[in-house]
Amino acid sequence: MDIMWYIFDMLGTVAFAISGALVGVAKKMDIFGIIVLALATAIGGGVIRDCLVGHFPPNSLQGMAYVLVVCGVSFIVFFIYRTRYYKQVMGLWSRRSYMMADALGLASFTVTGASVGYAAYPELPVFIVLLGTITAVGGGILRDMLAQQIPSVLKEDVYALPSIIGGVAYYLMRHGNWTFEPAYGAFMVVLVIRLLALYFHWSLPKVR
Amino acid sequence: MDIMWYIFDMLGTVAFAISGALVGVAKKMDIFGIIVLALATAIGGGVIRDCLVGHFPPNSLQGMAYVLVVCGVSFIVFFIYRTRYYKQVMGLWSRRSYMMADALGLASFTVTGASVGYAAYPELPVFIVLLGTITAVGGGILRDMLAQQIPSVLKEDVYALPSIIGGVAYYLMRHGNWTFEPAYGAFMVVLVIRLLALYFHWSLPKVR
Amino acid sequence: MDIMWYIFDMLGTVAFAISGALVGVAKKMDIFGIIVLALATAIGGGVIRDCLVGHFPPNSLQGMAYVLVVCGVSFIVFFIYRTRYYKQVMGLWSRRSYMMADALGLASFTVTGASVGYAAYPELPVFIVLLGTITAVGGGILRDMLAQQIPSVLKEDVYALPSIIGGVAYYLMRHGNWTFEPAYGAFMVVLVIRLLALYFHWSLPKVR
Repeated sequence: MDIMWYIFDMLGTVAFAISGALVGVAKKMDIFGIIVLALATAIGGGVIRDCLVGHFPPNSLQGMAYVLVVCGVSFIVFFIYRTRYYKQVMGLWSRRSYMMADALGLASFTVTGASVGYAAYPELPVFIVLLGTITAVGGGILRDMLAQQIPSVLKEDVYALPSIIGGVAYYLMRHGNWTFEPAYGAFMVVLVIRLLALYFHWSLPKVR
Repeated sequence: MDIMWYIFDMLGTVAFAISGALVGVAKKMDIFGIIVLALATAIGGGVIRDCLVGHFPPNSLQGMAYVLVVCGVSFIVFFIYRTRYYKQVMGLWSRRSYMMADALGLASFTVTGASVGYAAYPELPVFIVLLGTITAVGGGILRDMLAQQIPSVLKEDVYALPSIIGGVAYYLMRHGNWTFEPAYGAFMVVLVIRLLALYFHWSLPKVR
Repeated sequence: MDIMWYIFDMLGTVAFAISGALVGVAKKMDIFGIIVLALATAIGGGVIRDCLVGHFPPNSLQGMAYVLVVCGVSFIVFFIYRTRYYKQVMGLWSRRSYMMADALGLASFTVTGASVGYAAYPELPVFIVLLGTITAVGGGILRDMLAQQIPSVLKEDVYALPSIIGGVAYYLMRHGNWTFEPAYGAFMVVLVIRLLALYFHWSLPKVR
């Protein structure tokens, strides 16, 4: 199952990088700006998490894989848009498959974050849940702050809530010594809730 | 006097959380966004401080108290606005008492920050003063960055200056081995200057 | 040559502080806001770098020199604008010499960042290059985020690219055990590319 896990993590990284690169394109940034936004979205959450637990250098910067994948994705997005074939490509890489990859990323990043928290501070449930959520949504918040727009996760959609619930599920399953592997359980919790939220167009309550 | 200290710290946390939640409401965020802004405002400054001195996990995340209080405050603000009784409630919790709680928070956060700095690096006065100020105003800056508005502390009011002066006072009193407890002295310095600034509507000079 | 190095570093700090203070003036901030933007621009990149490698407290906060120089620069900019003699002063301190000082800062900050990375993790080339670039451009990004504008380095000009190339050059020269001092080599690489970019008005490609 470990190879499966790695695939989910990479799919999430790619989906997050695409989301960052697309915001960069929309804001008329140059190729450096597009790469920075893709990096911020894909590895920003994990970097903030590692800073909060005091792991240096951050996990995603200990090798080249993540940074190079994100740079590669950025260049691909850039050239697709540049050649103006993006409508055709967007047809292939439909919104639905993008949303699926993004949901896989949300789920795997949540579990990674919560497990880093549990490994370091098993006695701090609130911190563990927070780390899962920050890993999953922190990058998107950073992307929107760099692009000068109010972070979408704070206004729209049910995006952070599945991550919070997944973090709680992870903690409870680890804490309760379930024989079932907590990582897979929590992963499924996030994924299912997120897909339900997408399917039924859920949104969180606002004041008005 | 320790219980007094804890009360001031909690009053400040509540006041800062309210200020964050209100900005979230004003920016039409959902309940998750409101909680994030309240958390950023109430514990963001302390988290940045702990990152700068290398204390992990940050103090406010080592237990559940701060996070749960801030979440509770966010839900209360949310439901008050939702039920549209907020005008009546705002009458009870008048602007004056809010400003008093906020000033208590500014003072207690400044002292906490400066004392963390002094404990770790007593030979670095500039760093100590900076930590006091970051603890006190960093959360509000983070709140405004998340809400896409220029941080109010950079443009209006005399808000950071009392904190800077209080940090200097704290350092001088610790360094000079005053018999009077430096924490209370510095706390009063911040509080008095802040309340004077509010009463006389002081503001810092601008270019024009 | 060490005194030379210190001069370049200070020239860069002064140039970056000026750039931050000018944005603060343009956004009608008060003197505290102007100082915060100058500090963010001049030492923000280095602070982020030190957080990523786990050096606490950050290098620029271990003494008073940087903070006091930046505060001094902020006050000078403030009073020049306040007295409305700034057109005459701007004539003296022409755009050309400002750009030269800024380019020296870009070069020296890149080398400092890359050398911090190499000292800590010589086996991580991507991280080393990233640290050089973050040290050089991170402060400007922070400045623009505080001032609510899209970071200029993400949209305009060839500013980060010289730093990236310089970081790569630094790593290759260190890794290859060149007898020539890598710091000076990389410094010249950044400086020459940046000055060429300014002279020929280069810019990075955009989608449209």
